[in-house]
Amino acid sequence: MPQASAIALGLVAGGGELPLAIAESARESGREVFILALTGSADEWVRSFPHEWASLGEVNKAIKALRAHDCGEVLLAGKLARPKFSEIKLDAKGVLAAPRVIAAARKGDDALLRAVVDLFEREGFHVVGTAEAAPGLLAPQGQMGRVAPSRESEEDIAAAFKIVRAMGTLDIGQAAVVCDGLALAVEAAEGTDAMVARVANLPEHLRGTPSRRRGVLAKAPKPIQDRKTDLPVIGVQTVRGAAAVGLAGIAVEAGGALVLGKSAVIAEADRLGLFLVGVAP
Amino acid sequence: MPQASAIALGLVAGGGELPLAIAESARESGREVFILALTGSADEWVRSFPHEWASLGEVNKAIKALRAHDCGEVLLAGKLARPKFSEIKLDAKGVLAAPRVIAAARKGDDALLRAVVDLFEREGFHVVGTAEAAPGLLAPQGQMGRVAPSRESEEDIAAAFKIVRAMGTLDIGQAAVVCDGLALAVEAAEGTDAMVARVANLPEHLRGTPSRRRGVLAKAPKPIQDRKTDLPVIGVQTVRGAAAVGLAGIAVEAGGALVLGKSAVIAEADRLGLFLVGVAP
Repeated sequence: MPQASAIALGLVAGGGELPLAIAESARESGREVFILALTGSADEWVRSFPHEWASLGEVNKAIKALRAHDCGEVLLAGKLARPKFSEIKLDAKGVLAAPRVIAAARKGDDALLRAVVDLFEREGFHVVGTAEAAPGLLAPQGQMGRVAPSRESEEDIAAAFKIVRAMGTLDIGQAAVVCDGLALAVEAAEGTDAMVARVANLPEHLRGTPSRRRGVLAKAPKPIQDRKTDLPVIGVQTVRGAAAVGLAGIAVEAGGALVLGKSAVIAEADRLGLFLVGVAP
Repeated sequence: MPQASAIALGLVAGGGELPLAIAESARESGREVFILALTGSADEWVRSFPHEWASLGEVNKAIKALRAHDCGEVLLAGKLARPKFSEIKLDAKGVLAAPRVIAAARKGDDALLRAVVDLFEREGFHVVGTAEAAPGLLAPQGQMGRVAPSRESEEDIAAAFKIVRAMGTLDIGQAAVVCDGLALAVEAAEGTDAMVARVANLPEHLRGTPSRRRGVLAKAPKPIQDRKTDLPVIGVQTVRGAAAVGLAGIAVEAGGALVLGKSAVIAEADRLGLFLVGVAP
């Protein structure tokens, strides 16, 4: 859709590296980008783009700002410092939206995000995902760096994807670590970095070491997840974490995961001797 | 099968509380019990039973000892300090068995245990499970202590069992923690105690606290697991761990999990205000 790039992209930005990576990727492809920066979550980089700040309850203000900047498309990205609902100041539209959003929040992150996407779509915005707005961030298919997975690692990759997909169906998590066919760790609410780090607590015969790398970290999106909101992400820190616990490499779903700072990520994987592959869904 | 109790039980004992609980339960029911104690894994309590020590590779010695004590039935229980295969000293039968056992070990704990069960069955022993040899250890159905689960907890129990059964099908683990429908933690190789303990690292709005208990720990056997080898276990420590991270209670599969020291476990759950229920499979 080449005409899509003519429409300004309104990026509702939380914290972390992802919103900046999306904004840069979209701008590099020639699009106008306006940032609706969430107070308390978004970082200072937003000042290098046309932007406005709004807090979580200021739905009116957010929608007005996005309309004023002709954002036909809206994208939600980044981490939210989830405040207590009682501490959120609500403007008029915020009051109307709150009951539905609070009810959704109790059902989990995915339900919460879907409720917020709904809210923008009812206001006439077309909500897009990172895959559409910044396709350059998507993991490609095949080997990314210099290191190729061994036959044992290929088997671990297959086993790990089977696990991650089953867990995704149940809305549990997006990542797992498998070594020699054994599930060493499975992600739930703690996040990928913490999940990978605890592999170091397992006995050495179950896992690899930096001098004899074994096992794989796999990440794939939940099959039931709205891909407009929450694709799994890897970055340089993910590579360093996997390296620290002796893993042989990282496998992500090609087209279903984001690689933030791709060239830096690949360079770090090469430097540390880890493979990095995108696996067809 | 009342005639079964006339046959001596040969208990191949690793570490932990489980083998002792089984041996005592079988002896209390009037059976002869012989312990084949695994060197480096089994504990000193074996000295209070007729016993012999053997290391992991001494298959010949183990089989001879079990035959010499007329053990028509054999039961494997307890934790193994899994050594490196290269460090195991093999006797003649050990050499013959090793390739199959090593190949199985690479496929996961369940495959390893099935291979060892096979080995004993090919030698003419009838391998039994804890459910047969010590049925008094099995979790009963229904509420065990004084505290009843709330309606929210009933929903978390249902969600947690759904997760645990899906994970079991994939040979991942046997336990999960769910709070308000959200999977807080899922067990893989780290074991239940470590899995429960890390719930404390999650933000408080996601979980309960000792003053306002929420969420449930669920344990159920893997559907594919050979119940002769590895039923999930809870004990007093499990109750204390669940209490420490603010959970409302523990649910296990009735007839599909072992409660070690049942009266002490129930007393501790009552004291700490946690429910303890056995759920029909």
